[in-house]
Amino acid sequence: MRMGVDELRDLANGAAFLGAGGGGDPYIGRLLATSAIEEFGAPELVSAEDINDEARVLTIAMLGAPTVILEKAVSGDDIEFVIRSLEAKLDQKADYLMSIEIGGVNSLVPVMAAARLGLPLIDADGMGRAFPAIQMVTFNAFGVSATPLVMADDHGTSMVVEAPTAEAAEDIVRAASVPLGCSAVISCYPMLGRQVKDCAVLGTLSLARSIGKIIADNQQSEDPVESLVAHLRTTPYYSRCEILFDGKVVDVRRELRDGFSVGTVRLQSLKSETSIMEVQFQNEFLVAKLNGKTKAIVPDLVCLVDRETAQPILADGVRYGQRIKVLGVSAPSVMRADESLSIFGPQAFRMDEPFVPLEDL
Amino acid sequence: MRMGVDELRDLANGAAFLGAGGGGDPYIGRLLATSAIEEFGAPELVSAEDINDEARVLTIAMLGAPTVILEKAVSGDDIEFVIRSLEAKLDQKADYLMSIEIGGVNSLVPVMAAARLGLPLIDADGMGRAFPAIQMVTFNAFGVSATPLVMADDHGTSMVVEAPTAEAAEDIVRAASVPLGCSAVISCYPMLGRQVKDCAVLGTLSLARSIGKIIADNQQSEDPVESLVAHLRTTPYYSRCEILFDGKVVDVRRELRDGFSVGTVRLQSLKSETSIMEVQFQNEFLVAKLNGKTKAIVPDLVCLVDRETAQPILADGVRYGQRIKVLGVSAPSVMRADESLSIFGPQAFRMDEPFVPLEDL
Repeated sequence: MRMGVDELRDLANGAAFLGAGGGGDPYIGRLLATSAIEEFGAPELVSAEDINDEARVLTIAMLGAPTVILEKAVSGDDIEFVIRSLEAKLDQKADYLMSIEIGGVNSLVPVMAAARLGLPLIDADGMGRAFPAIQMVTFNAFGVSATPLVMADDHGTSMVVEAPTAEAAEDIVRAASVPLGCSAVISCYPMLGRQVKDCAVLGTLSLARSIGKIIADNQQSEDPVESLVAHLRTTPYYSRCEILFDGKVVDVRRELRDGFSVGTVRLQSLKSETSIMEVQFQNEFLVAKLNGKTKAIVPDLVCLVDRETAQPILADGVRYGQRIKVLGVSAPSVMRADESLSIFGPQAFRMDEPFVPLEDL
Repeated sequence: MRMGVDELRDLANGAAFLGAGGGGDPYIGRLLATSAIEEFGAPELVSAEDINDEARVLTIAMLGAPTVILEKAVSGDDIEFVIRSLEAKLDQKADYLMSIEIGGVNSLVPVMAAARLGLPLIDADGMGRAFPAIQMVTFNAFGVSATPLVMADDHGTSMVVEAPTAEAAEDIVRAASVPLGCSAVISCYPMLGRQVKDCAVLGTLSLARSIGKIIADNQQSEDPVESLVAHLRTTPYYSRCEILFDGKVVDVRRELRDGFSVGTVRLQSLKSETSIMEVQFQNEFLVAKLNGKTKAIVPDLVCLVDRETAQPILADGVRYGQRIKVLGVSAPSVMRADESLSIFGPQAFRMDEPFVPLEDL
């Protein structure tokens, strides 16, 4: 199928939902992809099973502080430069592009890139959600090297990085992104078709689009959130899904720490004033606690949606007084594997408690 | 001539003098070069006029916080990796190596590299002294691009940087050096033989060695500092040379700011308690003021030496109670040109006053 302008609204909105509060503003992502499709045509979306084992697959994403990405966006030239540089480094042309994460910006930037470069886009990513650091992908959990990696801004500054670990690559790239204005285009985890089949979370762009479509189609229904939950229960990854809380925001604490947006959202139940949910975030929502008891924890998804419309709400967009339903959604099973939990389980976010699947909480 | 182990003592000490308080510890530099020469043989030191206009010249240096460089040093493998990476990027083998600056570490690391790689070393650098940032070289003042640039640590992390300006390269490399442990090996300003002849400060390794030899040979003389000054007056660049002050250190203020060692040394005259000299530094000594009146200012060299032995004293090594003579030394004339002053004159260090040659102060 083609990923055309008509598909973008739903993709952007569904990706914002799966971004679990992070992943950037879907409006920006959609604008970027729309303009590229109008100029270069709609890229083809292909299933991982349809690609050759030896095909060269490159990823493309934006890296930086979400609020800055919102203002700076990407020029397109930087995307082309990054892909061409990595092709030169590998001495091999890209056959396919792929997303690293599902989120409002980083699901749409690959659409923009695929349109611009005339390359097909693989229906997959490395998380089935959004995360704040380069090492936090299934690719890394299952042995794909994060480097060689290329990062560039739109003023002609670029770097080709090699590093022994994905964490080392993350450290150097994160530090170097600051003088680049906290926003840059990046391509990492260059891989082959067979590695995509082995390591990626498959079908996630289609899934994101189907989630966005359900939200849009059910705006006039009696309970859009219930419709969304019913749909999630039919999906392969996100079928364990619960409405954890229905309440209003009574406090938001948010600070910028080490380049991350970190804080806590406090919600009070609409039915009982003494029932309180606290949701902690680091760019993405990490854990939801009902009266102090954990109800869902990373890598499972904690998603906040408008209680009337089911529209996803980003961590940076939570405001006092909003009426919100908090959803707990199961992460894809590959994300719950031991290899994965060591990289992006609760400990990776300095939390003391172990991961427990939300269906067991 | 060959740069053998016997030459290193004088080279290290003279380079520490010309480092004007910065440039790192000559003892470390000498150890590194000695060990490389013992293993691989002494490299040839060649005059710039003897090299071909089309010869490929690569620089090599350490970048980072001096105190960390002192502890981490370099492994040798990182040096080879950096040169090989830049050769691959340029698709051309290096014919010569060259220093970027004259200082205790960065004059000796190129000796180590030349020995290890079996390459001749050009008797020249980009400052005729030491400075704290990549853009502060005559190469930049006269139009040589700082990039492509390669930086690496000794744990397998590396980056190939391209940037539109030397300042942009400095910003990204400085930021990325922090996760590398504030110490890395770098090669920048790749150039051709003719650019060396046009832009470099020539003969500075030989000059450093001659200065170190004078200091060593005159330890038993009546006044080693006078012998040093008499020698400097015979050199092509450093002939304007004055003893600005003879005193003892009564105060040292020093802090780490933005990765630099920044502060002020206060000296009281041995002859008159009311006569005070203050010397400001940012890694290197920048300006010397006698009772508030500027007597020498960057890019001219302010050098502190032991008043009895003429041994150079680094900014990081100044201690309360030391008896010191402060020397003002003219920078090479190319460093006083307008193109150069815009890059490393007083304004580059946020000082309000203009550059005035020390002989006019």
